[in-house]
Amino acid sequence: MTTSTPNPFADLPINPSILRVPKSATLAINEKSKALQRAGKRIYRLGLGQSPFPVPELMVSRLQAYARAKDYMAVQGYLPLREAIAGMLRRTEGLDSQARRILVGPGSKELLFGLQMALDCELLLPAPSWVSYEPQARLLSRPCRWIETRPENGWKLTADDLEQQARQRDGKKRQLLILNSPNNPSGACYAETELQDLAEVARRHGILVLSDEIYSELHYRGEHRSMARYYPEGTLVSNGISKWAGAGGWRLGFLAFPEGLEALLQSMIVIASETFTSVSAPIQMASICAFEDSPAMLDYIHGCRRIMAGIGRDFSRRLREGGLQVAEPEGGFYCLPDFSPMADRLRNHGIESAADLATRLLEETGVAGLPGSDFGLHDHLALRFAFVDFDGTELLRVARERPDLAIDLHRPQLQRMQQAADRICDWLHRL
Amino acid sequence: MTTSTPNPFADLPINPSILRVPKSATLAINEKSKALQRAGKRIYRLGLGQSPFPVPELMVSRLQAYARAKDYMAVQGYLPLREAIAGMLRRTEGLDSQARRILVGPGSKELLFGLQMALDCELLLPAPSWVSYEPQARLLSRPCRWIETRPENGWKLTADDLEQQARQRDGKKRQLLILNSPNNPSGACYAETELQDLAEVARRHGILVLSDEIYSELHYRGEHRSMARYYPEGTLVSNGISKWAGAGGWRLGFLAFPEGLEALLQSMIVIASETFTSVSAPIQMASICAFEDSPAMLDYIHGCRRIMAGIGRDFSRRLREGGLQVAEPEGGFYCLPDFSPMADRLRNHGIESAADLATRLLEETGVAGLPGSDFGLHDHLALRFAFVDFDGTELLRVARERPDLAIDLHRPQLQRMQQAADRICDWLHRL
Repeated sequence: MTTSTPNPFADLPINPSILRVPKSATLAINEKSKALQRAGKRIYRLGLGQSPFPVPELMVSRLQAYARAKDYMAVQGYLPLREAIAGMLRRTEGLDSQARRILVGPGSKELLFGLQMALDCELLLPAPSWVSYEPQARLLSRPCRWIETRPENGWKLTADDLEQQARQRDGKKRQLLILNSPNNPSGACYAETELQDLAEVARRHGILVLSDEIYSELHYRGEHRSMARYYPEGTLVSNGISKWAGAGGWRLGFLAFPEGLEALLQSMIVIASETFTSVSAPIQMASICAFEDSPAMLDYIHGCRRIMAGIGRDFSRRLREGGLQVAEPEGGFYCLPDFSPMADRLRNHGIESAADLATRLLEETGVAGLPGSDFGLHDHLALRFAFVDFDGTELLRVARERPDLAIDLHRPQLQRMQQAADRICDWLHRL
Repeated sequence: MTTSTPNPFADLPINPSILRVPKSATLAINEKSKALQRAGKRIYRLGLGQSPFPVPELMVSRLQAYARAKDYMAVQGYLPLREAIAGMLRRTEGLDSQARRILVGPGSKELLFGLQMALDCELLLPAPSWVSYEPQARLLSRPCRWIETRPENGWKLTADDLEQQARQRDGKKRQLLILNSPNNPSGACYAETELQDLAEVARRHGILVLSDEIYSELHYRGEHRSMARYYPEGTLVSNGISKWAGAGGWRLGFLAFPEGLEALLQSMIVIASETFTSVSAPIQMASICAFEDSPAMLDYIHGCRRIMAGIGRDFSRRLREGGLQVAEPEGGFYCLPDFSPMADRLRNHGIESAADLATRLLEETGVAGLPGSDFGLHDHLALRFAFVDFDGTELLRVARERPDLAIDLHRPQLQRMQQAADRICDWLHRL
């Protein structure tokens, strides 16, 4: 069945855009983690940003109930699901959302790709930004412009930063800005006034905004604000069940379109119908309840928030005490400590880049973090830590049973997180 | 929350490739069907090619058991699933398949899109071919060349046809041929000798073949032959659970790569990781058993085959008796009658094209079929009928209980199919 002649497809013409997507350091770190683990080394998995919590039982029982669902769903998404999503955006953000302006996809990443495919725009990204926005632009040969931010204000894009790039811009292309709050990788959340100021600049320059709100319900104080509140006519909201409903592996996300962008929505439906077709029917039907207003979902979300807030506060404090520059996260799973205050000592230790730093820290302490350079941050020795290496099922159970319980790194369920913080600090101390 | 100023995004630059994808007549037929149905008219739904059978209970119970699965799976696909898929290809086709050369996606359509994105090739399509291959090429600005076939040999591509196009070709691009057997829209299956002859031409001209085998297990005699048997070094096999496992709405397909095309596989993994990420974890875990050798799956598949073979034989015979040129289908859900023998009478009735034919037939008989022109067939007045408008759950139960039972259109469960055939024939008679 095999041929022994020379491979006739050795010169197969691969799309050059794909070859321009750099191998991510993240992948290398993940592979090195696995190899070290196989070699018997204890690894603290602060690399991958997966929710530590289980899928809510409500969703699990719905998936079981709908396991026989087999029909192809509407390309745009199952109507009762789109209605639940629009309902949530109206309820939590006061947006003018309608089911007919929601598009459901197998993860918001697929939808962001479709958006960049549908639009012929220049992409604007604050540095740092999540690892997939820019590679998507490369795959689609779309231009991308990074906007520098500063650690002093939690790596947030300011209205001045945005205004400045708009003045400098030479191209004629429309611009698409991706904002992400609560933020991956920094843990920062944009405040109302910050969003208002950004909205004003975006409106003045006709910049379209994709507001990636995938961590929205994990704002620790429950004070997430959607950019669409302040810039309704120019904001697309993306969100899904991957983070605040613990269901990353289920693959379901959505995009909410403002009125007036129907042509864009229709173009994305064309792309959807020629690619993923529709999202898995049992998954769509089981996910409706995630967006509905129920005591069970609220209780789950409040429990997750409380736990992540406690860990984020303690973990970032420990790193600060260890000499790093790091803001206390306000939402989500991440913090982004800047090791630059120790740059000299790190250089003496042979560490010149964030990629070096991630590799050496992993080798010498077992703590896996991701280099800030994978997030577009090249001038700082920063690492992103996902503080999720604990048994979320157990801790969530405990937290829900005892609403008064303080969540700190001394809890027995958080031993690995505490050890990770200790190891990082000890390592820094010994440098 | 809304703005009353003129829409600042009215001139948003939509990717022109999307605008070049024509609205399909299929969509129009579906919309018209729904409108007629709402108006109280009885509609025979022979348009949409969805399996009439339930998802096998084995898969349903696995989905229920794995409903808590929440981790992001490996981009390439869950290893035990890839092993089961490779095992099936070895078992049923004798191919040299390995899990490391399988890529799992949310439907094979998404993977075919990724393949066309990853490759810079000219697409070769026999006319007729399934409705999405060419629009995908348009979305990606890939050239596409149609190769004419003839109704006399069941609309199958011959080695001579392929040889002729290869001699005429002027371009320098590599060519990617998509073959589909059992075929949508014609119901034809390629025989061993036909595939051998095609393989010889493909090999001589270095043509890469995508063999879409999504209906493989629905070859009525169980004699499906994969093109990869005869052209292992140049054939990618695509397949999934949508058709022969009744789970179109679950969204799971795969591509099997030959040895020597690892660079292409790696490129597609890059695309996958920046788009769909991985297929839904519960769906992947529940689908493993579809590919395994079990009495329950075999029994299910044999039941489906028997039913579809009986309906296909009777339905196509009725249409032939009614004056149409149509081959008896050998596998899958479809037949493609050619109305050209009645072209004069149809023209007198105001019908000039297959799209006219589909519309008028629907309006005047309630039978929904799809115009052959949506499948690239422009010189013939052909319609594709999906003979699936019956209760597959009930009929499958009856067929499994009584292995001796003859399946023909007189069975009470097939009343709608029989009425559809009657209505078409009566309409033709009255023309």
